[in-house]
Amino acid sequence: MPDLKTVLAEITAAMRAETTRGAVADYIPELRRVPLDRFGIAVVLRDGEEVTGGDADQPFSIQSISKVFTLTLALGRAGDGLWRRVGREPSGDPFNSIVQLEHERGIPRNPFINAGAIAVTDVLMAGNRPRETLAETLRFLRFVAEDDDIAIDEAVARSERETGFLNASLANYMRAFGVVQGDVEHVLGVYFHHCAIAMSCRHLARAGRYLAFNGRIPTLGAGIINPDRARRINALMLTCGHYDGSGDFAFSVGLPGKSGVGGGVLAVAPGTASIAVWSPGLDAKGNSLLGRIALERLARAMQWSVFG
Amino acid sequence: MPDLKTVLAEITAAMRAETTRGAVADYIPELRRVPLDRFGIAVVLRDGEEVTGGDADQPFSIQSISKVFTLTLALGRAGDGLWRRVGREPSGDPFNSIVQLEHERGIPRNPFINAGAIAVTDVLMAGNRPRETLAETLRFLRFVAEDDDIAIDEAVARSERETGFLNASLANYMRAFGVVQGDVEHVLGVYFHHCAIAMSCRHLARAGRYLAFNGRIPTLGAGIINPDRARRINALMLTCGHYDGSGDFAFSVGLPGKSGVGGGVLAVAPGTASIAVWSPGLDAKGNSLLGRIALERLARAMQWSVFG
Amino acid sequence: MPDLKTVLAEITAAMRAETTRGAVADYIPELRRVPLDRFGIAVVLRDGEEVTGGDADQPFSIQSISKVFTLTLALGRAGDGLWRRVGREPSGDPFNSIVQLEHERGIPRNPFINAGAIAVTDVLMAGNRPRETLAETLRFLRFVAEDDDIAIDEAVARSERETGFLNASLANYMRAFGVVQGDVEHVLGVYFHHCAIAMSCRHLARAGRYLAFNGRIPTLGAGIINPDRARRINALMLTCGHYDGSGDFAFSVGLPGKSGVGGGVLAVAPGTASIAVWSPGLDAKGNSLLGRIALERLARAMQWSVFG
Amino acid sequence: MPDLKTVLAEITAAMRAETTRGAVADYIPELRRVPLDRFGIAVVLRDGEEVTGGDADQPFSIQSISKVFTLTLALGRAGDGLWRRVGREPSGDPFNSIVQLEHERGIPRNPFINAGAIAVTDVLMAGNRPRETLAETLRFLRFVAEDDDIAIDEAVARSERETGFLNASLANYMRAFGVVQGDVEHVLGVYFHHCAIAMSCRHLARAGRYLAFNGRIPTLGAGIINPDRARRINALMLTCGHYDGSGDFAFSVGLPGKSGVGGGVLAVAPGTASIAVWSPGLDAKGNSLLGRIALERLARAMQWSVFG
Repeated sequence: MPDLKTVLAEITAAMRAETTRGAVADYIPELRRVPLDRFGIAVVLRDGEEVTGGDADQPFSIQSISKVFTLTLALGRAGDGLWRRVGREPSGDPFNSIVQLEHERGIPRNPFINAGAIAVTDVLMAGNRPRETLAETLRFLRFVAEDDDIAIDEAVARSERETGFLNASLANYMRAFGVVQGDVEHVLGVYFHHCAIAMSCRHLARAGRYLAFNGRIPTLGAGIINPDRARRINALMLTCGHYDGSGDFAFSVGLPGKSGVGGGVLAVAPGTASIAVWSPGLDAKGNSLLGRIALERLARAMQWSVFG
Repeated sequence: MPDLKTVLAEITAAMRAETTRGAVADYIPELRRVPLDRFGIAVVLRDGEEVTGGDADQPFSIQSISKVFTLTLALGRAGDGLWRRVGREPSGDPFNSIVQLEHERGIPRNPFINAGAIAVTDVLMAGNRPRETLAETLRFLRFVAEDDDIAIDEAVARSERETGFLNASLANYMRAFGVVQGDVEHVLGVYFHHCAIAMSCRHLARAGRYLAFNGRIPTLGAGIINPDRARRINALMLTCGHYDGSGDFAFSVGLPGKSGVGGGVLAVAPGTASIAVWSPGLDAKGNSLLGRIALERLARAMQWSVFG
Repeated sequence: MPDLKTVLAEITAAMRAETTRGAVADYIPELRRVPLDRFGIAVVLRDGEEVTGGDADQPFSIQSISKVFTLTLALGRAGDGLWRRVGREPSGDPFNSIVQLEHERGIPRNPFINAGAIAVTDVLMAGNRPRETLAETLRFLRFVAEDDDIAIDEAVARSERETGFLNASLANYMRAFGVVQGDVEHVLGVYFHHCAIAMSCRHLARAGRYLAFNGRIPTLGAGIINPDRARRINALMLTCGHYDGSGDFAFSVGLPGKSGVGGGVLAVAPGTASIAVWSPGLDAKGNSLLGRIALERLARAMQWSVFG
Repeated sequence: MPDLKTVLAEITAAMRAETTRGAVADYIPELRRVPLDRFGIAVVLRDGEEVTGGDADQPFSIQSISKVFTLTLALGRAGDGLWRRVGREPSGDPFNSIVQLEHERGIPRNPFINAGAIAVTDVLMAGNRPRETLAETLRFLRFVAEDDDIAIDEAVARSERETGFLNASLANYMRAFGVVQGDVEHVLGVYFHHCAIAMSCRHLARAGRYLAFNGRIPTLGAGIINPDRARRINALMLTCGHYDGSGDFAFSVGLPGKSGVGGGVLAVAPGTASIAVWSPGLDAKGNSLLGRIALERLARAMQWSVFG
């Protein structure tokens, strides 16, 4: 088995040198400003050791990676009743598709497409005010990431809101079928804000430990969720975590992972490591281009693929 | 860790006693005759030990499980060029849907839906005659299963052919776009015949060893495919192996698996075990109802889930 | 040619006696209260003669019939530039479908499905305030119907707004693509209000005269729109005026017509008559069940079909 | 009212001079050879007068215009029972779409899209041999067109068959649902052959007389179908006769019409005229580009629009 530090250093150098870097997300104006040349990676092992490369301590907009954490919290609140409102199947559609909602009476396919994450946000709110739900989400992230400075980037949240008509369309559609039950504006407000949370690779990798280690953070001695639930969230990340590129991510990387249009990816080698990578250039399906390549190299070098 | 023999005995007894067993596939007339009360399971470990339960030695129609083996052979023939004609993404559609083909210019989403497997069959034939391709497929299966009696059930093949108009529709559609390139009747003939191969759980589990053990059959000292390819086929089985129930199978079982409407499922615990289970009653999505439940129990009891 | 008075009397008697009357629209709560046994019909001829039957003077909620009038006004304002934002093809989908919008980048298929009418409303507003647009619409209807009491039923408008999440979804979707350009809430407000206009069959038939008589109201000596435009609106009513039942309406009735879920239908026998009918029970596609049957009888008896 | 001869002469001259002529259909190889500069038009009035312009006596491949005649014959055979297998609604899809079939259990939307016409062909065959059905179709056309030389262009039929995989896909799909009941190969054979019938504008306009004149050919004193049926076929031509361009054809021309990819259009001014036009260049939706423009001019000049 090669040395993790050496592997990360090699990957970081290779990714830094890469000239085909994808394109920064342009549909959220505020995200366009992020420099395309950034690359960071962080790995946290079971014993708490943290190995990083590149811009691993620079915060970026986690965007859809937040869907993993809100799902965790919503399952804690609603239990498996949540699955009456959200499916568990890959969608075969882009992240913001509404076609599937019409065909399936407003039930989103899974919690990691936009519609599903909006429904999960509604479950998580459960009558609470936006402010309370956001505070709870931040508290959770600060605890699992062991960083009290994690915060929402208000400029990004505002930018999302001002251009978030497709998400408003999805939310209203689900509201028509009773899948979203709360006030549409409030639900969207929370959704746009938790997508606008900024974190670094290091903190994100820490935050993913409870998924990598059977629901627990070993070094904290803290049980976050039960092992079954951690396993199931990992399964959802593998089948649905990269929108319509989920199959390809599983095929090439072989790890459960969740991407965000900010260019971040959280990935999990169950039992072994929690990993975060960041490169803001996206591929045609909205997933970090170099993020996937870096993870593919890492998984192969360390033989971390869950598939053998 | 519990004892595998004990676990299989308990699962077999529980599945035998189960009264909700799903419904036998009825769209292929010949399959309707299979008794609903059958249940078999077989596990082959790395050292070659075989542990079985119930009707593990009774042959059944492997149906779509054959898609795993024809994909293996077609990749051997065409290499990664195959992926120009077949995608690698879950479909979000039933196994026989044609809608996706129209939206994506005749390219099937993945090799495990019917359209994809027909395209793979066309790649595998590559100008050869139906008879030759079927002989090659049988030779392969007899070798990896270590059983020279594996054969095609001609009555089932005929039954499929006579009622296979949806598959003929898919094949002609892909032919219009050049995704299928050979003679449509010949391709369908081979497809219907390899779906009609009959195997027992024991032989099927043996046949899956090369996927479980990095492309090799350890006890034979035989390398079947390279480790990367085995890993990738496992990934495809996990994301696409149960049609529109793939997400749920990953969520509840956590193993790469491929189902067939004959009621069989081939599953793989990478590095540890190759597993076959058979119960002819299907759920609403065309996957073995008790097959999934048995695998869920097995994976949990043995802690074989790839997700932690 | 039979006598129109006799024909209408017979039709009215037959429709009164009919026991299969469809179901009152239930998705707008306020509309549920309308008694199912109502039936009215009114015909206005070129010379101004008005022949009526049943509840021809009782106002009802015109709902989607208003789309004809807002289209007329929006074309007056924007001219054929309107067709850059709205198509002219039948949709093959239910009135509130959003699937088509995703497939065609936010451009609604025609001005008579909900999405199309919302886009037309946006064109009609063109930066004006909701209040001004509604006042203009009412002024127009009062003039062409020669009735100063035509008004908006505020209880219906409120009811639509409170349950109008699908329409909000459509509007936001189009806003995302720049097809709707104004404030979504304002556009929806105007849309819900003009759907809630109440008119009687008599006034509705009068209002349709400009479509029946080449853009003019002969007895008023008033040119409303040019003949080409009247002809084209009639064509759109014929191909798209009954949602996914437009083909059947053309097939059985043979007249351009526009239905509303309040149970009204406005129909036009070009050169001969403007017709309004009302029966609140709807068929499975949301069109007045007896309204269609009454018009079929009328068109056959008077040989008014445009198809020979 | 202007003089018809003068109008046709002007239109013919204008169309001859037109440089934007669309593109000849290329998916049927044999049709590619037709010179793009051809233009013909023929009008037959109630009294039998025939006025023509351009290449009105040159035969061309009528293609989908044949669907009008096979529908007429199939209705004669099966009566309104035919509508249990074929719908009467515009499709909102291209002529060869299969998506709609999957959504509506194999029932094609209308008899004028390919799927619908294949189903109509199956109804028309009703157990007869291909040869008999084709003979019957030719006999009918020769009678209504008063021309004994009308024949099938075997080179075109062969060309369609060799490239007709999409149609084979549609036919097999409908066969799976029992909408097509006969032998798929035979039904397709007849379908490809009746599409390959060659006729001139003059003969096509004659053949349409029974639709223009209440089911009768006045000068022959022959009743072909009852007036209701003629009216209804006209309605279908108006709502569905130009595939996904039907709405636009109604909007701009205002006459029932049926186009073919050979560049022909049959149109009907009920009570007044039967019209055929031919220009082989097609628009983006597969309808004759100059054909539509010529008909729009004719309808406007003669005030023949059914919409006023």
